[in-house]
Formats: sequence, C-alpha cells, structure tokens
Amino acid sequence: MKKLLKEKTAFVSDMLKGMALTDDTHEVIADSVIVRKDKKQGKVALISGGGSGHEPAHAGYVAEGMLDAAVCGEVFTSPTPDKVLEAIKAVATDAGVLLIIKNYAGDVMNFEMAMEMAEMEDIKVDRVVIADDIAIDNKEQRRGVAGTVFVHKIAGYYADQGLSLEEVKAKVEAVLPNMATIGMALEPCMVPTTGDYGFQLADDEMEIGIGIHGEKGIYREKVESVDKIIERLMHEIEKELEFDQAIVMLNGMGGTPLSELNVAAYYLNTYFSGNNKTITKLYVGNYMTALDMQGFSITVLKHDDEYVEALNSSTASRYFF
Amino acid sequence: MKKLLKEKTAFVSDMLKGMALTDDTHEVIADSVIVRKDKKQGKVALISGGGSGHEPAHAGYVAEGMLDAAVCGEVFTSPTPDKVLEAIKAVATDAGVLLIIKNYAGDVMNFEMAMEMAEMEDIKVDRVVIADDIAIDNKEQRRGVAGTVFVHKIAGYYADQGLSLEEVKAKVEAVLPNMATIGMALEPCMVPTTGDYGFQLADDEMEIGIGIHGEKGIYREKVESVDKIIERLMHEIEKELEFDQAIVMLNGMGGTPLSELNVAAYYLNTYFSGNNKTITKLYVGNYMTALDMQGFSITVLKHDDEYVEALNSSTASRYFF
Repeated sequence: MKKLLKEKTAFVSDMLKGMALTDDTHEVIADSVIVRKDKKQGKVALISGGGSGHEPAHAGYVAEGMLDAAVCGEVFTSPTPDKVLEAIKAVATDAGVLLIIKNYAGDVMNFEMAMEMAEMEDIKVDRVVIADDIAIDNKEQRRGVAGTVFVHKIAGYYADQGLSLEEVKAKVEAVLPNMATIGMALEPCMVPTTGDYGFQLADDEMEIGIGIHGEKGIYREKVESVDKIIERLMHEIEKELEFDQAIVMLNGMGGTPLSELNVAAYYLNTYFSGNNKTITKLYVGNYMTALDMQGFSITVLKHDDEYVEALNSSTASRYFF
Repeated sequence: MKKLLKEKTAFVSDMLKGMALTDDTHEVIADSVIVRKDKKQGKVALISGGGSGHEPAHAGYVAEGMLDAAVCGEVFTSPTPDKVLEAIKAVATDAGVLLIIKNYAGDVMNFEMAMEMAEMEDIKVDRVVIADDIAIDNKEQRRGVAGTVFVHKIAGYYADQGLSLEEVKAKVEAVLPNMATIGMALEPCMVPTTGDYGFQLADDEMEIGIGIHGEKGIYREKVESVDKIIERLMHEIEKELEFDQAIVMLNGMGGTPLSELNVAAYYLNTYFSGNNKTITKLYVGNYMTALDMQGFSITVLKHDDEYVEALNSSTASRYFF
C-alpha cells in the first residue's frame, strides 16, 4: 500500500488537523467535527457529514453561505450519534438546525438518533435525506452523492435569507425530485486505512454506476471514448428527468486530473447542444470524491432561475465555484 | 490505456474548450492561448505557459490579479514561438509584457524567440526564468515547478500596483533566490496522448526529486511514512535555504486526493514547529500538477511581509487560494 499517511488509525484526525491549518475560520471540536468559529445567529444552522474520504465534502463546505458544521466519521464510516449531537449543540440557533444526510443506512440511523437526543434537550432540529444517485433503481435504496453539494449551497442560501426551518426544509425537498446523479470509474479507490480496493478492474474495463465508498457499479463495460461514456450516463439520467435546460456538475472522483475532467466537460456540453438542451451553469472539479478513485459523476439539476440565484450567491468556501 | 478522452490528438484542444465553459472571463485564441476578455490597460501584462498537463497551471491563473495569458502547448510539449507571439500581441500594453518561463530548454528557447519577434514589432517585452526545483544540483539545469505559481501571484500584484516592466522583473528576480521546491511520487503519471509512463515504480517504492513532466526522480527509496518523507524533502530544502519563517505550498501532483495532502500538511507543520520554524502562510492543493501523478511537492518561500501582502491580495482565479 502506498499512501501519504503515518498511522492508519490517525488518518482522519491528521487530515482534519491539516485542513484546519489552511482555514482560520474553522475550529475542530470533539476530534471530528468542523464548525465555523464565527457562529451563526438567529438563522437556521446547517449540518452535514458522514464518512470521510469525500474531501472537500463536507468539511470544505463549512463556510459562510453553506454549512455551519461537518461531522467527519472515519473513512467511509458513519460518524457516531454522539459526534452528530456535539455538532448540533455547537451550532444550534433559536431558528433551529437542519441536518443534510446522504442516504446511507448508517448515516440516516446515526443522524436521526442524534436528532432525537437533541430534541430531548429542546433543540429544534429536522433533517433532509439526499438520494440523488439514480444508478440504483429502487428509490428507497438510492445513495446520496454529488448532488448533496448543490443542496449545501441552496440550503445555505435560504438559511441566510432568514427562512424558517420548515421553509428551508420545504425548499430543499422541492429541489430533490429535480436532481439526478450517476457516476463511473476507470480505476477503483484504495482505502488508506485498510489498503483494500472496493473492486478490481482490468486494463480495458470501466465501471458504471459506482458509489462514493468504493462500491462497485451496476455494470461493467469495456472502456469507451469519453463522448460515448457521457452518452451512456446521460441516457440513464434522461430516463429519470425531463429537462431542456439544466444546471450541471461534472464531479471528479478524486484521482482524475483536471485536464481529463475538462475534456469530459467539453463532450458533456456537446451532448447537450446535440440534443437541443442547454447547460445554464456548469461546475467542473472535485466536489464529492471517493479518495483516489479515477472517474467522474454527472449531476443534472433541472434549471430554475431561483436555483441559479442560490448557487451564484456568495460563499466563503474555497471549494464551491 | 484508460483515460477520459476522445481523440488523443485533440486532448489539449478539447481540454481548453472545456475549461472555457466554466470561465466566461476567458477567451481562447490561436487554438491554444487563453487570454482575459477584459484586456488590461496601461499596466504590465503577464504571460506564462508551457506544455499542458499541469492544470490548473497555467490557464487557471489567467485572471484579474494574476496572468493575462497562458500559452498551452501539447501535453508536456513547449508551445511554438508563433503561439507565444500571438499571446504577446493579444495582451501587450504600453507598459510592456513580462514572460514568466519555467526553466526547460524548449520553453526558454521558444518564449525567447517569440520575445525577439515581438521586439521586432516594437512591443516592449522581457522575461524571467523560474528554476525553483532544487532536486537538480546544477543550478543552470534546475527546472521551473510549483514555485512558478507563487511568481504568477506576486508578479500580478506588482503589475497591478502600476510598477514598470523593469520594476516588476526586478521584484520577481529578487524573490527567486528565496524560493526552493522539491517533489516526490508514489505513482508515475500516464501521458494520455501516448499511454506511456515516464517511469515505473514497484509496490513498495517511491521516487524522490521528480519533475512535472513524468521525469523520474533523483533517487528511489522504499516507501516511508509521510512524516519521514517530509523530513527527507525538508532536509534537501534546508541545504539550500536558511529560514525561520516561511510561506509554504504543499502541491498535489494531480492524482493525490485532498485527504492525503492534508495529512501531509499536518506533518509538514509538525516538522516546522519541531524545528523551531514557523509557516506564516500555507497553501494546500493542486497548483502545478503532472497529469494523474500521485505525490506532492513542497515549495518554501522565505517569509517576507511584502510577499504575504502580494499573495493575499485579491485575484479572480478560482485556483489560487
């Protein structure tokens, strides 16, 4: 195994200490919770999190205009309810707290347990569950992936506008049916704490419909040129969503260089124009990664002027642009 | 070979077209030159460039506060003099043009040839050559690597302050002796246009002193824990530079996830404090990459309040933070 680390067991805590060195608006509490030093007052506070390994998600989005806290579990492992509770207590305002949870059994269970504990302490808290990964047919089992980052930004916008907890939640829940993501990998990721790969691919194979925790995809194919890959992914998305105009994220899985992501972005745009569709706003970069996996995901969010306004509103996060 | 591309020969032009989709302040001219639409007036214009494969360098730094143009050659291949000349003509102002050249024979030759051609057309132009890679003992042969990005920002600051071409050049040349970089790789990069690797490493080997074009390093070692790797690199830098306080860049080589870079950043900071030294400003991220190489470089710039002011000054580049 070749990874930049000292002790496997310290990987996440070392990483969080490293991240704190470059962001003096951050504070690390309870060893694994990143909060804003400049605590929000009187408006809905937003918390996300989950297993680590998806950097910059979620800690990189703890910033004015986006999240108030990120709860960082071990690599690909849900944070425990007590850590989520620490986060809730640290950022709670009179307006309440919204938990933005990716749809994984462990995350949903632990965040909801923390929510109950917080309610017992009279903290107003609610949650939304993100399940944008259309690779899985069964909607109950769909995972939360890159679209979650759009939700962080959109929810941050509404929270900053002073909407109530019920209103922010309702706004976010109205977005979810308009969003779909699917991803692919050329190479799997290696988990630094175990040295294991989630799957193995031959030199001429790619995996379609991968998750962000090293899970293998829905099916495997011979590698194609990127325009064909995009066609394949977009066909899946089009089965799910009808749209002429969309806000689109082309998200790198962590080990894919920016050059290749931009080549893919070009063919994604070509696909849209060839099908009389328009990308009204395009995001290209590493937003929700799976360690060093090589590959990308496409998130399509049906265009809405209000979404664009929310996404374009200012944030201090260096990772959302 | 598994890469996100359509035609190998179109890799760079597709990439540039993709990059242009996410930055509406950019314009692509002569197929391979990125310029700011909002042309600078009356102040020194800055141009950099070289082979592609180092993204976000240099096109990502074409922005208010940094570069006015980037000339993008094929992957790891110097742009031809006529392309550099196109860039010079496109951005030249009455105050003149400064070329920021990484010290590679092809780059130096082609940029200088373009400079001569521009001078024949009465354009005021000069150049600085960056050779911050201390892996190579012979100073004449030292390569320009990640420190070049600091130069882009510092030169941009002085240009914006209205300094003359001679002054901006002198300011930059005064910085260079205070800066040193060295890099390492856990995995080599694959050149997407050929499918070739610059070198091969066994599962337990790392390469110290790598360049950013897939060149192998100065020596090879068994992989160590990241704190030992940092000690090794810092010892090389300390042979070169004396400093108690420094501005530091921990630069990912393209395929290393942000999680590992932050683990490395934590141990880099630990090394500094353990040696009674201070990092006054720390940069962690992918600034000057070598395609999908896994590894990182450390750039140390001796602290100077003026450098910090220059580096902290505003820029519209989304890639310098």
